Parts: sequence; C-alpha cells; structure tokens
Amino acid sequence: MHIFHTITELRSWRKQVKRVALVPTMGNLHAGHLALVRTAKAHADAVVVSIFVNRIQFGVGEDFELYPRTLAEDVEKLTEAGADVVFAPSETELYPNGTQQYFVEPPAIQNELCGRSRPGHFRGVATIVTKLFNIVQPDVACFGKKDYQQLAVIKGMVQDLNMDIDIIPVEIERADSGLALSSRNGYLTIEQREQAAQLSAQLRTMAEAMRRGNRQFAALENSAATYLQQHGWQVDYIEVRHAQTLTKAQISDKNLVIVAAAILGTTRLIDNLEVQLEHE
Amino acid sequence: MHIFHTITELRSWRKQVKRVALVPTMGNLHAGHLALVRTAKAHADAVVVSIFVNRIQFGVGEDFELYPRTLAEDVEKLTEAGADVVFAPSETELYPNGTQQYFVEPPAIQNELCGRSRPGHFRGVATIVTKLFNIVQPDVACFGKKDYQQLAVIKGMVQDLNMDIDIIPVEIERADSGLALSSRNGYLTIEQREQAAQLSAQLRTMAEAMRRGNRQFAALENSAATYLQQHGWQVDYIEVRHAQTLTKAQISDKNLVIVAAAILGTTRLIDNLEVQLEHE
Repeated sequence: MHIFHTITELRSWRKQVKRVALVPTMGNLHAGHLALVRTAKAHADAVVVSIFVNRIQFGVGEDFELYPRTLAEDVEKLTEAGADVVFAPSETELYPNGTQQYFVEPPAIQNELCGRSRPGHFRGVATIVTKLFNIVQPDVACFGKKDYQQLAVIKGMVQDLNMDIDIIPVEIERADSGLALSSRNGYLTIEQREQAAQLSAQLRTMAEAMRRGNRQFAALENSAATYLQQHGWQVDYIEVRHAQTLTKAQISDKNLVIVAAAILGTTRLIDNLEVQLEHE
Repeated sequence: MHIFHTITELRSWRKQVKRVALVPTMGNLHAGHLALVRTAKAHADAVVVSIFVNRIQFGVGEDFELYPRTLAEDVEKLTEAGADVVFAPSETELYPNGTQQYFVEPPAIQNELCGRSRPGHFRGVATIVTKLFNIVQPDVACFGKKDYQQLAVIKGMVQDLNMDIDIIPVEIERADSGLALSSRNGYLTIEQREQAAQLSAQLRTMAEAMRRGNRQFAALENSAATYLQQHGWQVDYIEVRHAQTLTKAQISDKNLVIVAAAILGTTRLIDNLEVQLEHE
C-alpha cells in the first residue's frame, strides 16, 4: 500500500491506474470506514482512502483540535482491508494560502437539520470533497449513509456541477447494541456508550409505527424526542423527511428517512433510518 | 468537425481523445475567439469550443435576451479555424432543474471592478466554467485577457479547488483603431464604434506616463476618467491594479494592469492594458 502526503505523488500514481474509487475520511477509522473500503474495492481497480481532518467543515467551538488523529493505526487497518493508497495530506498541502478562497456553496438544505447548528459545515464538506475529487479524479466515491445529509449534499453537488463520478452510498455499520459506529463514539464513557443505543432504538420504534400505518409524523417525532430528553439527552432534531430531497415528509411520501441528532453528555451523535413504505 | 448538443455525446467522444483543450465562449465569434482556438490547437490533440449563453452570469436588466445567438455562422468560422468539436448545449441540458443549485463562490474580488455593477456575475462565470470543465475534462483551457478579471477569477479557482487544468491566457485582439474586439461591439453604431477607440487610447496614455516614471496612479485614473466623461462616456471604473492579485496598485508594484469599464450610449465596454515596470 502506498502512503502519499503530497498532491504531486498522488497524481503521478493516478496516471498509471485506470479505474479508481475514492473513500474520503477524517481518519480514526472504524468498521464503518472499512465497509466503505470493501464496497470501493468492488467498484474499481484501485482504492484511494484520503485521511484529512478538514478544518473548514468545523465550526467555532467544535472539536477540530480534539478530533482524534491516529494515522499509524489507520494505515494498519487499511493495509489489512486491502486499500491501495492512503492519501494523507498536510493542512498546508490542501490550504497553501492558509485559508480556502473559493467555496462550493450548497443550496438551502445546508442550513437545515445538522446545518442549523453547524453553519458553514456543508459548505466546508462540499468544498473539500470537490478538492479531493479534483486531486484524485476517481471514477466512483463511497460515502456512508450515517452522514445522511452529507450524502444528500454530495449527490446533489455531483449532479448539479456535472461531476463525472458515481456516488455509492454504503449502509451504516452498527454495534450489537444498535449504536451507529462513529469516530465521535470515542468521546463517550462506558456508561454513555451503553446508553447511546437509545438513539437508534427510538428510530426503530418510529419506523415500526410508520410501517404499521402511523402517519402522525409530528407526534412520533415528539414522542421520541421526549423519551430521549427524559433520559438525559439534549435533542437537536429528530425528524421524518423525504429520503431523496430531505424536505419535510408529506403524508403521501413512500421513501422516507428518520434523521436525528442529539447530545449525550458533551458528545453530539447523529443517526438515521430509512423507511420504505410499501402500502398506502 | 463534430457538433454536440448533449453531455452524453461529448463525453463519449472525449473518451477517445488524449489531450483536449477547451475554449469556453458565448458564441457570436470574432477574431478574438479565433485567436483562442489557434492557441488551443497548439496545446492539445483536439480543441473543444463550447458555445453557451449562460443565463446565471447575467444580472437583472442585463442583455441576456438580447445577446446575439449566431450558431450557424459560428460553426462556419470554427470549421475554418480547425476546431474539432463545437459543444452547444441547450439551457435544459446544463440547467435541467431550471436553475443552478450549487455554486462556486469566488472570494471578495468578485465584488470589485466589474463585480460592483454586476453582482453575481463572477459566481455565475465560476460555476458554468466548473460545469464545463467537469463535462469536457480538458487538459488546458484558453481564456482571453480582455476579460481580465474573469481570467483572474478562473486562475484563482483552478488553483484553489485543485483543478488539474492549465489555464492559458491569450492576448487581446484589437481593431486597427485599438478597440478591443468584443461581441458587444455589435451593439455600437458606426459613429460609436469609431469613438470607442478612445477607451484603449486612454489606457495607452496612462501606460506611457507610468513607463516614464509617473506613479500618481489616482491622478492618472482621474485624468483618463475625466477625458472619457467629457467625450460622452459614462465611466464605471478606470484603475491601476496589481496584475496578478487585482488588488489596488502599490507604488512599489512592478506588474500592473490598467483595467477599465465604461458605457458608450447604452453599451458597456471593458478593456485593459498590462504594464510591466522594469525600473524603480
């Protein structure tokens, strides 16, 4: 496996490979990332995993400084997983002027859900992903469904800016408890990690009610939020949305997703569950 | 020469060609565009000329509807000039949702000079050029120096978003009178076209003074603006700037450009002249 820290090295390698899949990450890899790598391998001749903690997608007061950097362990896991290249650029390699000047600006959806409490986050994500796409020039790129809104933004961007890249969504990896795997789970205490399963449990409860014919989305949302608050969570949002557009769910919609963000102690966790309704 | 109206046709042709140069235009081609094509031919195996009057770079009350569409004549000129492909997409081909959702947002320079009177213009330019780059995937792209601020925005964008494309600036083509060639010259009456040479004449006068050691940029700017106003022009700006950054010229700067925009009758004309100062 190659480890490249510069754009020049990456590009010179890229010229020799036909079909490349990119898995963009911020490192601190867990089984969710490795599932992305497995999917990527099935779609290309070579898999590039980028590892870059991207300052411009963190807001003021967020955990940019604290975010775990574990390159050595990540490289070990990626070697085992059969990645071909780790692209781990320095901050000056990607932001040689200190800051980014040109941004890819997503539409209004960037200010809803996670965007409401993280202004500029999706702009930062769209911009770094565009930069990585331009550097790696992949044929396909894999993104986890756990960051559901991010996936929607990336899919929208690729289509709207005519990027010739297939975006492949990959299912959420979960602990046995149901907790969605996330680098930020590392911030949880042992007790919190156990309790954290309540979030996905509430999503499943809502989904089951919806599959049984319950279309009282607001009541379902309130009930789940109340449960979590009563158990010590600070709920950012828990909402039923249209799975593709992420607009507010209509009673007639069939492709839905329940998206949620809530804070346990000081750790902000997100999760979601797609609900495909067959019958009216 | 191929004429493609769809992205699918263009992409399928693109796969068979190694090194491609792109010349993005809005059509109504004149000798300035053909100079771009000649330069492009020297840098690639094949030249794609795009022709698209891009609604999102026109402001409210600007000449989008009026802008001349002359595809048949353009195709004839490009055949003669030896272009390989004309890419002339419809509006729904490039904006299938009716509007663009994701924009490439340039930094503050987009609000100065031409941007001051054309809000959103450079955002529209950066966005359509990004789309065309993603569709055509050129190795090089040629832009005329006449749109000097546009060229600076594109160069900045390519660098800042890590696009792997060489941007080649091409010198301004001028009529014998000195008037910079422009599609908008077609809006001028015969008398106005003669008078229009005053704009480039003022740029030359300023440049000569600067080369003789005059560093009173503000005085030179005022003097040129006053001359033009006295001759019936409405001056938008005429300024000495740093040639690369387009920031206000400092007395110690060596690489300068005089940029100007002024309205004759109802036609807004732009022009510029680079001034390289050798001695202190």
